[in-house]
Amino acid sequence: MKTLQELKKEVQIFRDERDWKQFHTPKNLAMALSVEASELAELFLWDDNETSFNTALNKNENLKEEMADVLIYLLSMADVLNIDLSKAVYEKLEKNRNKYPIEKSKGSCRKYTEL
Amino acid sequence: MKTLQELKKEVQIFRDERDWKQFHTPKNLAMALSVEASELAELFLWDDNETSFNTALNKNENLKEEMADVLIYLLSMADVLNIDLSKAVYEKLEKNRNKYPIEKSKGSCRKYTEL
Amino acid sequence: MKTLQELKKEVQIFRDERDWKQFHTPKNLAMALSVEASELAELFLWDDNETSFNTALNKNENLKEEMADVLIYLLSMADVLNIDLSKAVYEKLEKNRNKYPIEKSKGSCRKYTEL
Amino acid sequence: MKTLQELKKEVQIFRDERDWKQFHTPKNLAMALSVEASELAELFLWDDNETSFNTALNKNENLKEEMADVLIYLLSMADVLNIDLSKAVYEKLEKNRNKYPIEKSKGSCRKYTEL
Repeated sequence: MKTLQELKKEVQIFRDERDWKQFHTPKNLAMALSVEASELAELFLWDDNETSFNTALNKNENLKEEMADVLIYLLSMADVLNIDLSKAVYEKLEKNRNKYPIEKSKGSCRKYTEL
Repeated sequence: MKTLQELKKEVQIFRDERDWKQFHTPKNLAMALSVEASELAELFLWDDNETSFNTALNKNENLKEEMADVLIYLLSMADVLNIDLSKAVYEKLEKNRNKYPIEKSKGSCRKYTEL
Repeated sequence: MKTLQELKKEVQIFRDERDWKQFHTPKNLAMALSVEASELAELFLWDDNETSFNTALNKNENLKEEMADVLIYLLSMADVLNIDLSKAVYEKLEKNRNKYPIEKSKGSCRKYTEL
Repeated sequence: MKTLQELKKEVQIFRDERDWKQFHTPKNLAMALSVEASELAELFLWDDNETSFNTALNKNENLKEEMADVLIYLLSMADVLNIDLSKAVYEKLEKNRNKYPIEKSKGSCRKYTEL
């Protein structure tokens, strides 16, 4: 099982072999990540929530590739901006614990602004 | 340094304490991920590529939160669909090595279909 | 009932009073449009297809604003790039008639590549 | 020059010949619109703001198609939800006049929350 650090290293090597860091500005990477996230969403475009589980199986190879693309750009951004993604997730979960206290949010999909 | 497996466990616990797995269909998670990716992109909306590095510093807290949100939904999807994200990244990089051979793609931002 | 031309004129006036044309590069406008489209999608984030009709009623004001934002950026882009949106829609529908012949696509949500 | 009403009629006919209204829930249409907006953004992915004008010329056919797709889904949503898009744009511009008073926003790309 790999750490994010190890994965980031792999992504770095791939990028640097191609001399692509010059294109990896925060604006470009954010745009690229958003484009990949949309390609992931497109797989489920006309599905119902229920049928999307089947689609995930039928398009499993595509799905894994789009998810990988999202993570690759996220790691690229973390690298360029020197951000610790593990720490960012821990801190965001901590913040979300305050925004979404269990007793108010249990079983509800409302946004914290509407709790 | 955390593995993706450990991070996913944290995200699972947060979700299950709130009984939110019922909302985590592939379609919904893909849509949520795409919304968060757009919020990340919005931080750099009117920037030039160059100025986006400054923006990343000035909005660093926001930036880390949006990046964390993207990863949280990606891990949630990996959990629900039982996908090994590390493996998916390795396999995608391998595929990209074929689509973007170094000698053809070095220093170029062209899509593989235009190389 | 307004023509697109008249609407575009209104959007132009608003923009030029604020001296905003300098920010309206194709890249920035495409990014802005994508951000607004995601805000529109966010309104229906945890819905089922069926429940999204109710959400459209309950969040009707929000909905109209997000749809307006999308159209405002689309008109801004059409203005900057001198594109006739009516014509573009007619031509795309014509092209789609070939990609999606009635007898093959009737009642099916498959992409043309899978028909 | 066509009114939005006339364009919407064309889009309706295309849809109904294929019996596609059944897929046109607000959630699905919002997702489709967001996917098309991302395909539009992808055209300018690695551009600078300046170079994106050239890209708009070089990929002009693609560009018009993606812009048309965005408008087609926007009109489809307006149809299904019975929304007057012209009116929505006028009302949004009116609201924006208050959020972005000329004297505060002239020449500035700041969000109204930061003016």
